[in-house]
Amino acid sequence: MAKQGVLTSQATDFPRWYQDVLAKAELADNGPVRGTMVIRPYGYGIWERMQAELDQRIKALGVSNAYFPLLIPESFLHREAQHVEGFSPELAVVTHGGGKKLDEPLVVRPTSETIINSYFAKWIQSHRDLPMLLNQWANVVRWELRPRLFLRTTEFLWQEGHTAHVSEPDARAFALRVLDEVYRDFMVEVLAIPVLTGRKTARERFAGADTTWTCEGMMLDGKALQMGTSHELGQNFSRVFDITYLDDTGAQAHVWQTSWGTSTRLMGALVMAHGDDSGLRLPPRLAPVQVVVVLARDEDGAGAAAQAMAAELAAAGIRVEHDARIDTSFGRRVVDWELKGVPVRIEVGPRDLARGEVVLVRRDSGTKEPVAVHGLAERITTTLAEIQAAMASAASDFRRRHTTEVAGVDEALEAGQSGFAVIPTAALGDDGETLLNNAGLSVRCLLNADLSTPSGTEGDVAVVSRAY
Amino acid sequence: MAKQGVLTSQATDFPRWYQDVLAKAELADNGPVRGTMVIRPYGYGIWERMQAELDQRIKALGVSNAYFPLLIPESFLHREAQHVEGFSPELAVVTHGGGKKLDEPLVVRPTSETIINSYFAKWIQSHRDLPMLLNQWANVVRWELRPRLFLRTTEFLWQEGHTAHVSEPDARAFALRVLDEVYRDFMVEVLAIPVLTGRKTARERFAGADTTWTCEGMMLDGKALQMGTSHELGQNFSRVFDITYLDDTGAQAHVWQTSWGTSTRLMGALVMAHGDDSGLRLPPRLAPVQVVVVLARDEDGAGAAAQAMAAELAAAGIRVEHDARIDTSFGRRVVDWELKGVPVRIEVGPRDLARGEVVLVRRDSGTKEPVAVHGLAERITTTLAEIQAAMASAASDFRRRHTTEVAGVDEALEAGQSGFAVIPTAALGDDGETLLNNAGLSVRCLLNADLSTPSGTEGDVAVVSRAY
Repeated sequence: MAKQGVLTSQATDFPRWYQDVLAKAELADNGPVRGTMVIRPYGYGIWERMQAELDQRIKALGVSNAYFPLLIPESFLHREAQHVEGFSPELAVVTHGGGKKLDEPLVVRPTSETIINSYFAKWIQSHRDLPMLLNQWANVVRWELRPRLFLRTTEFLWQEGHTAHVSEPDARAFALRVLDEVYRDFMVEVLAIPVLTGRKTARERFAGADTTWTCEGMMLDGKALQMGTSHELGQNFSRVFDITYLDDTGAQAHVWQTSWGTSTRLMGALVMAHGDDSGLRLPPRLAPVQVVVVLARDEDGAGAAAQAMAAELAAAGIRVEHDARIDTSFGRRVVDWELKGVPVRIEVGPRDLARGEVVLVRRDSGTKEPVAVHGLAERITTTLAEIQAAMASAASDFRRRHTTEVAGVDEALEAGQSGFAVIPTAALGDDGETLLNNAGLSVRCLLNADLSTPSGTEGDVAVVSRAY
Repeated sequence: MAKQGVLTSQATDFPRWYQDVLAKAELADNGPVRGTMVIRPYGYGIWERMQAELDQRIKALGVSNAYFPLLIPESFLHREAQHVEGFSPELAVVTHGGGKKLDEPLVVRPTSETIINSYFAKWIQSHRDLPMLLNQWANVVRWELRPRLFLRTTEFLWQEGHTAHVSEPDARAFALRVLDEVYRDFMVEVLAIPVLTGRKTARERFAGADTTWTCEGMMLDGKALQMGTSHELGQNFSRVFDITYLDDTGAQAHVWQTSWGTSTRLMGALVMAHGDDSGLRLPPRLAPVQVVVVLARDEDGAGAAAQAMAAELAAAGIRVEHDARIDTSFGRRVVDWELKGVPVRIEVGPRDLARGEVVLVRRDSGTKEPVAVHGLAERITTTLAEIQAAMASAASDFRRRHTTEVAGVDEALEAGQSGFAVIPTAALGDDGETLLNNAGLSVRCLLNADLSTPSGTEGDVAVVSRAY
């Protein structure tokens, strides 16, 4: 299906291919300030679908959305030692406001633990106020020296959840529910990207967390992408912000907390986990446009028929667009819809219509076949489900083929270059991790031997790879 | 219905009553930086409903959402002379990023005309690219010296639409469609607040606009609140950002533009247009919780019955919450739901239930009556529609009673203190407007004599009042 010259091929230059897809599919553009980005309407439409799917899962856990200020007094960041150490090099600082120099500089939030926890301290009094479960959808700023659109940008959009619980087991259970019921479920079921959900090593964990859980996806160049994280904060923030409650015995106790986030990085994951040399390929459950009805020529009533078909599909609950721009060449429009990754294309022309048919083209496999206009909506509903399953299966197969079990660090150094190397945690050690890091590899997460989420305090194996 | 002492009464001190409602209904809190705010979960849930209703109307006009960077090079602001003059005193400026002083300071966006139009210049080439219709949901920062929660905050949330058209009439028509089909329709039909939609005078218009259209609502203290604006930008930005297209004759031409916005100010309007001494009153079409089923005592199966009722209402498409917190006193919970403005309260107790009844309480009128459990969902659906209509009608009546036709500026000075004074535009003049401004009044908008939106270049009458 690849049209020569539209995009750099993945095999030639994967990073360049990625940039080409973002530009040609009109997903994003560089902002005027280095590291910032403009999310174009087609890209933002995909992000809105991600938001809706995530938001629904977050609310199903009993979490409410709220909004906290963008500007945080610099002193707030300094309260938690590891937190400020982790974020200081990345801060954007407002020193002037309303035409005057400010008494205290303000940081543009890099994340909101400090400001949100200062309110938790006000709002939480009794065990009846717990658990407190909040989330916010917001922009955050972290100064980025080596920016890449969607993957590492100075400003990005995300959701950040913040919760407080009566006990450590409660907080851990909640962090793991978010990991599994919100993140893994969304990534696997909607994005059709298999993810490993494991624990980060000490050096990879969030600044201020006791434990960081992560979702790691494999991109088509064999590199890992961290797609979402869920942190157990222990009592690190509740102690410095003095978040206490009166327990049922009448004693004051500090709460146990979690925080967790996913961001517009997911857009990068989507491109690199499913794209091909013709552009983006969107899983149907995510796609803002699931089906495009492309009118070839408006002759013999084909235009009206295409219009009616699009209306019928919309009435059946399918997200459909009707492309009747016959003043643009058919070939050029087809290339454009392939770039945009729309899962199903229906080509409508007067000759096929005379036989009661249209042509159905699958974006995932490129297969084309004539199908009857009668019963089209049911047929497409079935095809969309098949595409969703086929894409998930292809991504799982790819990961399986690029995952190697190894016995020691030397083997991991080699296998981790082109995929995931799975090494026994006992054979790795802190020195082994240093060796890997020096070679440009990292430990993505610790897992049980069957690659399931570790339930104990450690995982039996470590997954090692290059990473975004 | 007023419970003494829960809130300052409106009659005693309206601004204090407003602050009390925000605090007690848990809508918002002050942020740590002066002028910033925290939107609490209940307040944010209302804002999410506003967003959904507005977003649907915006998309119905063919507008797509996108996202542009928060940080704008200071030089961008300077390109349009009136624009920078209007916004300079309100800017927050980032001077340091990533641990270094920046070469060029960055402003935190106060609005996005400059950055968005720099991209319009890239994206618009031909008349086929027009109209270009974009919107973004974002936070903006304008340094505020006299902040008030929701009404004037240093950071606020809003949507800002930006469009480009081939001609001045097209741009005007679009600005007016937004005013009418998005803003007025939402405010009247969902918020149940009647608004005057007219033209701003030269001194009240947006910095950089040729014409500003506004929606002005009347609050319960007789003051006006500007609830949304739609601007005709003419070619002011297209000339400085060089946004041109090849027209169908092959000549280069500058586009004609609009921009338009509504913000979290609408939350303030909602409180002040409908609230009473017991708290918030939410119109049912907006309310995140339309009905609360309050269990009085869990005896004789009342708990299970209340649970089943809530499930039945939810199944009927009603947004319902079940309050089974019987360890908190019934009276205290009732006060809390009244503060939160939930339109209908269903009180469930074992004695009424034995007769097959529950008590239905309307928040708008305070009326209480026993109703049969059988057929409850249909009954409540009817009641919600009645409440919506009654609230709209009460707000219209209030505005009518507080609107006075006057012949000259002296009369306007008096009548404008406690409501809207409607004065012939010819009797006002620029000097008249200065007199009014010096007395703390302003011209809210210019209208036709029947208070409809002026279709010509001027309005016959001016509406004068105090304003937020």
